[in-house]
Amino acid sequence: MESPLEEKDEALLPDFPKGPLQTYRARASFSWKELLLFLEGEDIIRLKRTIFSTLENDPLFARCCRGDIAVDKYRELSFLRCKRFLEYRFVRVKDFLQAPVKVSVLIECMGMYDWSVGIKYILNMLVFTLTVFSLGSERHFEYIQKIFKMEIFGCFALTELSHGSNSKAIRTTAHYDPSSEEFIINSPDFEASKFWVGNMGKTATHAVVFAQLYMPGGQCHGLHAFVVQIRDPKTLLSMPGVMVGDIGRKLGQNGLDNGFAMFHHVRVPRQALLNRTGDVTPDGSYVTPFKDNRQRFGASLDSLSAGRVSIMSMSTVNLKLAVCIAIRFSATRRQFGPTNMEEIPVLEYQMQQWRLLPYLAAVFALSHFSKCLFINLLEFYQGMQSQGRSAQQAALGREIHALASAGKPLTSWTAQRGVQECREACGGHGYLAVNRLGDLRDDNDPNCTYEGDNNVLLQQTSNFLLSLLAEKAQGGARAESPLKITGFLDAYPDILSQKFSAPSAGNAWAPEEVLDHSYTLAAYRWLVCYLLRESDRKLNQEKQAGSSDFDARNNSQVYHCHSLALAFMELTVAQRFHDFTRHASVPPSLRDVLGRLSALYSVWSLSQHVATLYQGGYFSGEQAGKMVKATILDLCSQLKDDAVALVDVLAPSDFFLDSPIGKADGQLYQNLWAAVLQGNQVLERPSWWPKFSCEKLEFRSLKPKLAQLCPISPYLREVDPTWPK
Amino acid sequence: MESPLEEKDEALLPDFPKGPLQTYRARASFSWKELLLFLEGEDIIRLKRTIFSTLENDPLFARCCRGDIAVDKYRELSFLRCKRFLEYRFVRVKDFLQAPVKVSVLIECMGMYDWSVGIKYILNMLVFTLTVFSLGSERHFEYIQKIFKMEIFGCFALTELSHGSNSKAIRTTAHYDPSSEEFIINSPDFEASKFWVGNMGKTATHAVVFAQLYMPGGQCHGLHAFVVQIRDPKTLLSMPGVMVGDIGRKLGQNGLDNGFAMFHHVRVPRQALLNRTGDVTPDGSYVTPFKDNRQRFGASLDSLSAGRVSIMSMSTVNLKLAVCIAIRFSATRRQFGPTNMEEIPVLEYQMQQWRLLPYLAAVFALSHFSKCLFINLLEFYQGMQSQGRSAQQAALGREIHALASAGKPLTSWTAQRGVQECREACGGHGYLAVNRLGDLRDDNDPNCTYEGDNNVLLQQTSNFLLSLLAEKAQGGARAESPLKITGFLDAYPDILSQKFSAPSAGNAWAPEEVLDHSYTLAAYRWLVCYLLRESDRKLNQEKQAGSSDFDARNNSQVYHCHSLALAFMELTVAQRFHDFTRHASVPPSLRDVLGRLSALYSVWSLSQHVATLYQGGYFSGEQAGKMVKATILDLCSQLKDDAVALVDVLAPSDFFLDSPIGKADGQLYQNLWAAVLQGNQVLERPSWWPKFSCEKLEFRSLKPKLAQLCPISPYLREVDPTWPK
Repeated sequence: MESPLEEKDEALLPDFPKGPLQTYRARASFSWKELLLFLEGEDIIRLKRTIFSTLENDPLFARCCRGDIAVDKYRELSFLRCKRFLEYRFVRVKDFLQAPVKVSVLIECMGMYDWSVGIKYILNMLVFTLTVFSLGSERHFEYIQKIFKMEIFGCFALTELSHGSNSKAIRTTAHYDPSSEEFIINSPDFEASKFWVGNMGKTATHAVVFAQLYMPGGQCHGLHAFVVQIRDPKTLLSMPGVMVGDIGRKLGQNGLDNGFAMFHHVRVPRQALLNRTGDVTPDGSYVTPFKDNRQRFGASLDSLSAGRVSIMSMSTVNLKLAVCIAIRFSATRRQFGPTNMEEIPVLEYQMQQWRLLPYLAAVFALSHFSKCLFINLLEFYQGMQSQGRSAQQAALGREIHALASAGKPLTSWTAQRGVQECREACGGHGYLAVNRLGDLRDDNDPNCTYEGDNNVLLQQTSNFLLSLLAEKAQGGARAESPLKITGFLDAYPDILSQKFSAPSAGNAWAPEEVLDHSYTLAAYRWLVCYLLRESDRKLNQEKQAGSSDFDARNNSQVYHCHSLALAFMELTVAQRFHDFTRHASVPPSLRDVLGRLSALYSVWSLSQHVATLYQGGYFSGEQAGKMVKATILDLCSQLKDDAVALVDVLAPSDFFLDSPIGKADGQLYQNLWAAVLQGNQVLERPSWWPKFSCEKLEFRSLKPKLAQLCPISPYLREVDPTWPK
Repeated sequence: MESPLEEKDEALLPDFPKGPLQTYRARASFSWKELLLFLEGEDIIRLKRTIFSTLENDPLFARCCRGDIAVDKYRELSFLRCKRFLEYRFVRVKDFLQAPVKVSVLIECMGMYDWSVGIKYILNMLVFTLTVFSLGSERHFEYIQKIFKMEIFGCFALTELSHGSNSKAIRTTAHYDPSSEEFIINSPDFEASKFWVGNMGKTATHAVVFAQLYMPGGQCHGLHAFVVQIRDPKTLLSMPGVMVGDIGRKLGQNGLDNGFAMFHHVRVPRQALLNRTGDVTPDGSYVTPFKDNRQRFGASLDSLSAGRVSIMSMSTVNLKLAVCIAIRFSATRRQFGPTNMEEIPVLEYQMQQWRLLPYLAAVFALSHFSKCLFINLLEFYQGMQSQGRSAQQAALGREIHALASAGKPLTSWTAQRGVQECREACGGHGYLAVNRLGDLRDDNDPNCTYEGDNNVLLQQTSNFLLSLLAEKAQGGARAESPLKITGFLDAYPDILSQKFSAPSAGNAWAPEEVLDHSYTLAAYRWLVCYLLRESDRKLNQEKQAGSSDFDARNNSQVYHCHSLALAFMELTVAQRFHDFTRHASVPPSLRDVLGRLSALYSVWSLSQHVATLYQGGYFSGEQAGKMVKATILDLCSQLKDDAVALVDVLAPSDFFLDSPIGKADGQLYQNLWAAVLQGNQVLERPSWWPKFSCEKLEFRSLKPKLAQLCPISPYLREVDPTWPK
């Protein structure tokens, strides 16, 4: 039978260079090229390869010593790279509408190169423009044109020094002055300075500023957005009344300039108000299609879902790169062995497999999920056009909101822990900056915080589930679930009465049961129902004990709503990946490896909840817990020989991966040694050598005291009787 | 009753400045001054305060913008600070023998200032000199004298590019040439270059180099240590035949210069061999008091225990500083509240308490443990003098080795996770470099790796426990446990037959039961016995199934030996802190707060193992699991009002803590704002502004395409009908 690959352009997917990884590559149970083509398709692969080779050949993108660059220079490079990305026009303007997946691939590639550039681009090209689009009207579209021409540079200024999560409590004000038809933007004090705003530190000329809108009569209409010019595009000097600056070095993403701004009675024209959700007439009347501030506020901030879905994809990219580095390292690093003569790759150790392979599975499961959710989001926006705000659309919007609100925490945390595990799994070499695991961890870290702190955000999802339960309790109506995510809750009481029944026999599932892993998903469904019931009970208990709604909610997060939201999200990710891997379109030659990845992600995620499965009585006896563990180890061992080929599917070009210990040729030590020797002034003595050589210390009568210098000297005396007492 | 405090010098423990933290300070159930005096004693407090104020007043130690300093400059500062520390002679030479705890306080203070300086000092002043002391003889003591005069600078060169954990497989060679009475040190290839060696990058003039010793006849006697001069102290240029350089930037500790060295047939005199465990006569005969290489190798490396105990203390310091920052932040950061008008400190949220307070408890428990183990180590060394290698001493040595081998992993991991949690708990501001949580995390990270990778090291402890079990099985003799740590294993079968019996009633323990928390410790003892039995069974199963010893051991780590070592260590830490807090010497006014900290550390640590407690049948029913959770939350809530005062006990001076959001005055925003404005060129436009302002992009006919730019444009059209199709 002719392989479908032979028909493809061989140049598209060239073989990897021969080398130490060959052994594992030869052992793989599947063709990495076939899996890559199946997952991404030829067009996307071609686009990625184009981006990879274009940037690799452009000196502006040349890699320099990681971290050895001054912040100002790094900011400059990030700005220039951001601009060059736009100039290359890898994606056509029409693709934004017709092939938005290409746009997300573009962003993924920018992030694989460096998130400082990627986020700078996103904040300017997407967040600023989308906010102007969605909150403004035609009179604001000139800003978009100017952004695309790079005449101006944008930022999104919501958070303040003293307010982040509680965005409703923002204190910047905008007073309308009908005499001049202007708004006066003002920061009452430094605690109300806009703070943390990406691109604001050095680059942005225009900001979407959120402020409390006050009418001449003193009435406050709540938070509104205004386009405010903060710097002169001709000089990059700040505008009068605007004190704008850089908040300084962060743990990562230092190519991005986060900034602050204080407004001292800055006057902007009436037209600066982004007026979709509310407008002010020239004479100072407030008009809005919304009934109350709360509803208006919700509508004005619902573009945040797109940000959260993006962060899921960003986090997954970070984990993907870290796993590529750690697995290629583990397949080539040899340490210890059955005899003194022979050392084996550390990937052969069960411990190393257990540390890394679940994260490899997580990359596949989470990538699939974030791609799906992105498509759901696009469908939602398209549905808004054809159906408007129908009940079906409203339900879809709610469901996407719930998934994005727990998807961001799950993905960013999995990535954060996974990258750290990869760093540790690469030992000392993982701690060397040139190998990139530090940058991946540091650049990923804020994904846990911005666009909604993870712990706060999870409440959105648990609230959604609790409201479904309440609806059922009230009417018994079928839970509306356009994405079929929450349908299983219809069987809530039945599921709660289920118990785990051990499969066939022994300590582990039979191979076909493992790949099916319906046991895991059933256990997850029980877990979600149990946590839902417990959360509901806990909330009611609190209220019955006299707690306010505020206190009741706060006291029901730990071990209840918080766990519920995460477990629900893990189930959703696991279920979607399970469905995908068992779809008829999967080539038979790929089913086993995809099935194993899916099973491993499920059972590994579930293993965090075994205590709860026992506590609630779903598990009982010693076998249940042992089976979960045995299954994880079994799957790790089955995937071990496929790991390098799976990483070949995930990894970008060596230039993009940018890690000597993770290169595709597997020449671990040659690559690392070369990278170290190419460092800055590696072999030179330090500039301050005279300070070492000229200034010595005076110690009189040191020698007789030597014996007392060290707490173990008595021990030494045993060895050396001449040692002075 | 007159407070004992009034007799003390008020200047020693001045009150904190008034401010927003006052509310919590007033609510504390105990006096922070009393607790500090009880825990540290007046002498240590005085020493610390002296160090704090001396450094704060020395411009050499002035803080500069975190991370904004070039590596070369940072290395210079670290070297000069290291030297200045020595010049200040905070600790007298005789204190090294008479009051070694003072030396550990000195190192703790250096670390609180900056671990780059601290580790540079430790490697030179302690590791190099102790190695020369313990492996060498009188002819080598001149090196120590020179180290103290700063005439030379030392490093410890064991690991190579391709060998870390498996140190026996080191490939550097030392061939003896009797004709010149010299050793020829050689690196066979770059993979055998010494690598990761602290101080070697730029500073060290002398290295203790570990190499395989070869006799003229070709016989190899295994690993030996040699003092090799690598640089000329007059010029800091490398010595002939030595290619020595810097391995480059790391994720943290960049004030420390880690380096590499390749030796090209470098000749050193016969006397360069550190000859305690084996020597070579001038004519080329090898003499050793040890029977075989294996025994000799063990003896030559057993000084590593001291390093591991030090790392426990280093990790605890990192966690301590992070917890101080995060708790002071949480007590002053307000976000959301019961009404729109009033916001409450985030420390009031159960979720925030649950995230942070267990780590606060861990700081107390782990600090106590690492201090104890340090004292045990000193006693061990003293015992070597009086008793030599008696059976009792041998048992003590083994026990300390087992505790240090699991203590380092437990402490470094707890710190790594805790610092990350603190970073996240401080939200965006935690991600700002100036607040130090990033440096704490990055500087702590290698504690998980060096001096034995955590996962590899845990095997030492599980092997120790398994060997105790085997000894019992063979002779039934009482497990020898000089530190009374493993005595409970005598009751191994009885303990295994125990089951958890719910205390009095309800969802949680009664207050007095919580403080007693003998339930937790009993559960832990069962857990250790169960994991010991399971590990032993697993190893035997593997062997019966035909696995080699090597494979059997490797396949018994995950969920078995690995968990066993950690659980045993947690129990040991919890038990020791429990005993300490219930000791008669504890003032009655401190018993409750210390008891709560002890109980929280125990039950929080135990909560990681609830699945195993159920799996093994120690727990059954829903109540057991729920009680563990309820107890944690209950203790968090009880400790919440004491948290700020507890942090006042732990925190160094503001200058040492070096975190605007963690300052003692609690003026969160004022301090942060001041720090940001004091940054480098905060308000200036970037140097590259003309590149922004002059070069614009050409986009023809952009406006008609605008509508297609964004995937959500259909959604926008609903809002704005003028939006072009």
